[in-house]
Amino acid sequence: MSFKPRATLPDTAFTLPARYYTDQTLFERELDVFYRSLWVGVARLEDLPARGSWITRNVAGDNVLIVRQDGDAVRAFYNLCRHRGTQLCDADRGEFAGSIRCPYHAWTYDYDGRLVGAPHMDGSPGFNRDEFPLNSIRAAVWDGFVFVSLAADGPSLADQLGGIPDKFQSWRMGSLRRAHQIVYDVGANWKLIVQNYNECLHCPTLHPALNRLSHYLNGENEPFRENYMGGRMDLNEGAKTMSMDGTCSRAPLSGLSEEERRHVYYYSVFPNFMIAPHPDYVLTHTLWPLAPNRTRIVCDWFVDAAELAKPGFDFTDATAFWDMTNRQDWHVCELAQGGISSRGYRPGPYSNREDLLYAFDRYILDKLGESPDR
Amino acid sequence: MSFKPRATLPDTAFTLPARYYTDQTLFERELDVFYRSLWVGVARLEDLPARGSWITRNVAGDNVLIVRQDGDAVRAFYNLCRHRGTQLCDADRGEFAGSIRCPYHAWTYDYDGRLVGAPHMDGSPGFNRDEFPLNSIRAAVWDGFVFVSLAADGPSLADQLGGIPDKFQSWRMGSLRRAHQIVYDVGANWKLIVQNYNECLHCPTLHPALNRLSHYLNGENEPFRENYMGGRMDLNEGAKTMSMDGTCSRAPLSGLSEEERRHVYYYSVFPNFMIAPHPDYVLTHTLWPLAPNRTRIVCDWFVDAAELAKPGFDFTDATAFWDMTNRQDWHVCELAQGGISSRGYRPGPYSNREDLLYAFDRYILDKLGESPDR
Amino acid sequence: MSFKPRATLPDTAFTLPARYYTDQTLFERELDVFYRSLWVGVARLEDLPARGSWITRNVAGDNVLIVRQDGDAVRAFYNLCRHRGTQLCDADRGEFAGSIRCPYHAWTYDYDGRLVGAPHMDGSPGFNRDEFPLNSIRAAVWDGFVFVSLAADGPSLADQLGGIPDKFQSWRMGSLRRAHQIVYDVGANWKLIVQNYNECLHCPTLHPALNRLSHYLNGENEPFRENYMGGRMDLNEGAKTMSMDGTCSRAPLSGLSEEERRHVYYYSVFPNFMIAPHPDYVLTHTLWPLAPNRTRIVCDWFVDAAELAKPGFDFTDATAFWDMTNRQDWHVCELAQGGISSRGYRPGPYSNREDLLYAFDRYILDKLGESPDR
Repeated sequence: MSFKPRATLPDTAFTLPARYYTDQTLFERELDVFYRSLWVGVARLEDLPARGSWITRNVAGDNVLIVRQDGDAVRAFYNLCRHRGTQLCDADRGEFAGSIRCPYHAWTYDYDGRLVGAPHMDGSPGFNRDEFPLNSIRAAVWDGFVFVSLAADGPSLADQLGGIPDKFQSWRMGSLRRAHQIVYDVGANWKLIVQNYNECLHCPTLHPALNRLSHYLNGENEPFRENYMGGRMDLNEGAKTMSMDGTCSRAPLSGLSEEERRHVYYYSVFPNFMIAPHPDYVLTHTLWPLAPNRTRIVCDWFVDAAELAKPGFDFTDATAFWDMTNRQDWHVCELAQGGISSRGYRPGPYSNREDLLYAFDRYILDKLGESPDR
Repeated sequence: MSFKPRATLPDTAFTLPARYYTDQTLFERELDVFYRSLWVGVARLEDLPARGSWITRNVAGDNVLIVRQDGDAVRAFYNLCRHRGTQLCDADRGEFAGSIRCPYHAWTYDYDGRLVGAPHMDGSPGFNRDEFPLNSIRAAVWDGFVFVSLAADGPSLADQLGGIPDKFQSWRMGSLRRAHQIVYDVGANWKLIVQNYNECLHCPTLHPALNRLSHYLNGENEPFRENYMGGRMDLNEGAKTMSMDGTCSRAPLSGLSEEERRHVYYYSVFPNFMIAPHPDYVLTHTLWPLAPNRTRIVCDWFVDAAELAKPGFDFTDATAFWDMTNRQDWHVCELAQGGISSRGYRPGPYSNREDLLYAFDRYILDKLGESPDR
Repeated sequence: MSFKPRATLPDTAFTLPARYYTDQTLFERELDVFYRSLWVGVARLEDLPARGSWITRNVAGDNVLIVRQDGDAVRAFYNLCRHRGTQLCDADRGEFAGSIRCPYHAWTYDYDGRLVGAPHMDGSPGFNRDEFPLNSIRAAVWDGFVFVSLAADGPSLADQLGGIPDKFQSWRMGSLRRAHQIVYDVGANWKLIVQNYNECLHCPTLHPALNRLSHYLNGENEPFRENYMGGRMDLNEGAKTMSMDGTCSRAPLSGLSEEERRHVYYYSVFPNFMIAPHPDYVLTHTLWPLAPNRTRIVCDWFVDAAELAKPGFDFTDATAFWDMTNRQDWHVCELAQGGISSRGYRPGPYSNREDLLYAFDRYILDKLGESPDR
């Protein structure tokens, strides 16, 4: 094998100062600049199976209520009543029976968030129902993935996703269904998770099983884009997918080309959605920053609906493989968080194989309005 | 039935901004202005059965030692030694054997807090025992309820209670005894608990069982007073008291008039004492704010001492009813706390049936020296 | 018995204001001024049995890696890789197999901390291994006790220990071995632990068993020194050592004089190392401040290696005695923390028998650059 070298990074390509991983104020600014400004992945359309189905999600500290409308449409609202601020829904998911009713004083809204009932407010001469709709949040769906944006305006979801929908069109992801989910609570800054996801230089040391299926130098990165980054790894001769032994009992997804079946793709859509299309399944990691040093990670596996429905469908080869690999990654991310938090930490040099990480750091600084030299 | 309408509130009668329920600095100011300035309910005289009996209470972060004197008198002190600051009592309650002795170096005080023994201080020429009494706190008793005030001076307990002792004189509360106690840890600001206590507009939605015993529109509020607010609910035809089915196996309290037996009263004495005289028992809620979003609530039921002493005395009809109702209230208070804490919260309009809540909000702002328009 | 009186303290010899025991900012300054500037005790050489043995310790929030070299030498480093800051060692102790390798990308260091391997850095023209050694920390050993100093320069360990090594030379502590260890988590400021250790005025009240072995007035303090303080207690007639009943089944340490066998010594080496040589064992307490109101205390007992190796060696008379005494002390330290944290606390007067505590308070204020009169 011969491996394509990567472009040389500048001498100044060092990791970020510690404060970007430890400082509470910077963390809050990141929530504003990334998690409250960009589109964040929150769910799958299958989590909202019918009109009136709802879910709640905590997005950067705010509880968001997402309601399925007719067809594939969804709407999102801050999960609270306009009367005295009471949370309307007190669970992860449920089904409304025709309207949204506050459990405290029975103020009632339709699925578009319009106030349609407000007991005992008639006696208030200045009161006008139209002035108190639910507080709305933008929501949109791409191939079955539901995103919301807390920003009142700004780019559309399509703008943010850029070339990604086209690139993965063959996977027909809207028709896939969730086969498995694992939630991890990781003691590391969310950016360390993103960085870990976007380089495979650590694979031979940390992931011997993965490295047997795809040689760590045998891949290609796409140039860094405005709101995402990623690349592909090439499956070794004989490996069919990422699974415990590289074999695969499932058919490849039907729309894929011969070429697409030889790769595994890894893309991070900033800030919180990481997607890895495989020949026979799609893996996503959704990040929920809880503190400068803590991130909740929801890992989902999606497969062909027909495959999932087969009697005796067994997916443990893929879920066990990625659960093992995930845990190796989270552990080393926690070690990185621990070391970076130390007074002994100094920014260190990136190698040329960590090109995307260096670009990501510049992106973070740029969005935060921070000088790269500070 | 016909229900008396309430006066119309101004157009500007909206709930308070979120910060009054979430901000740590405002919370600390409230502790100063309310919990360290006013009288707070802490115990019953029956908790201090004899001279030398003591209890400790954490009042707004300070541990207070309360000691029974001769007769019905009590004295209170900061629970710490004047030598090196050691806490004198390390439990909720106990009995002194003639004096108060520090467990560290045996400095000893009498029940009036005078230092009567200080080993090895004789060698210090400038030392004078009289200069080191226990640090005293005001304490007073009303009808068996023990209150303390951390304020060095200010109004008497009688001044603070205003018309309340007269209003409930017929209940002869000094002779009642505790039949039951439940302690709740609630994830809501203390003011949300007070507000929830003082309106019944939520009763049909949240408390169907209670609403069967007393129609939610069938009551009357007293005008807001300087340091308390309250009103009454009228028991429906056939309901004898607040219990699971409205029946009552206990005799009404003997001093009550026919009229007094048809009502349940709800009064909040600011900041922490809420009292509900019923025909056959008295219910109190004592609030202990722990954080902007957390309050400990001690709920006590008091009955006639002779009734309590009867063989086979069974009080579960009343305790189960109120425990169920309490839990419904605490849950919706937690939902309100959750929604108000969201960036999506905006103050909402009060209805005319929430008149006391609007008055309470003005009282809070006034005491804090905050402008109602901010 | 006649007891030597102590010199009279000034009228102004009062305990410190509460903030020195409760304020987070002052606590952080203490970590800088004491725990990051002075030598702190961290381990015994026996914890690092051979070349390549390592331990980790959290010193004032920083994880320190300590590695045994040839002979009795040790070296210490910040426990993190110079590449991306990853913690190198993720356990309390272990053995390196020839080098120190980062688990993330396999950067490799020798035991002197020199970078000897950095995969894929060759492509970076400006990269020079010599510029990225492990970040070094000073380490030194006294009679088997390992100390580190986070200060880049400053006095040697010998300077800090002053007269202590000479004073306890007869105990030949380098040849002792750990017989027992107990770790305590105590809800009190570290200085309260030091103060409690350095006066026995509390012994008759708090430690009746100890007071039977050594009368609390029967001892002598050495004058306060620059970085340590201490004194001795005299064993009562018939008491052989500090144990449950004062008897001792072990031989006294062979190097001790008749005089040295009649005393127990108590020395605090600031900030975190307290050592108590007994006739037949040495007891140490190592303090790890976790918060203004919380300290982790590691208590170790060391005995003659030959004694420890004897079949049926039983040390519970000494360990049970000190565990009981420790718990009495920690409990009263927690009561002191509780009282001092109260708004009711005022500094109180020291007796002449608390001379070292008053001197320690002045030392603390002086090092912090605070005026004693504030």
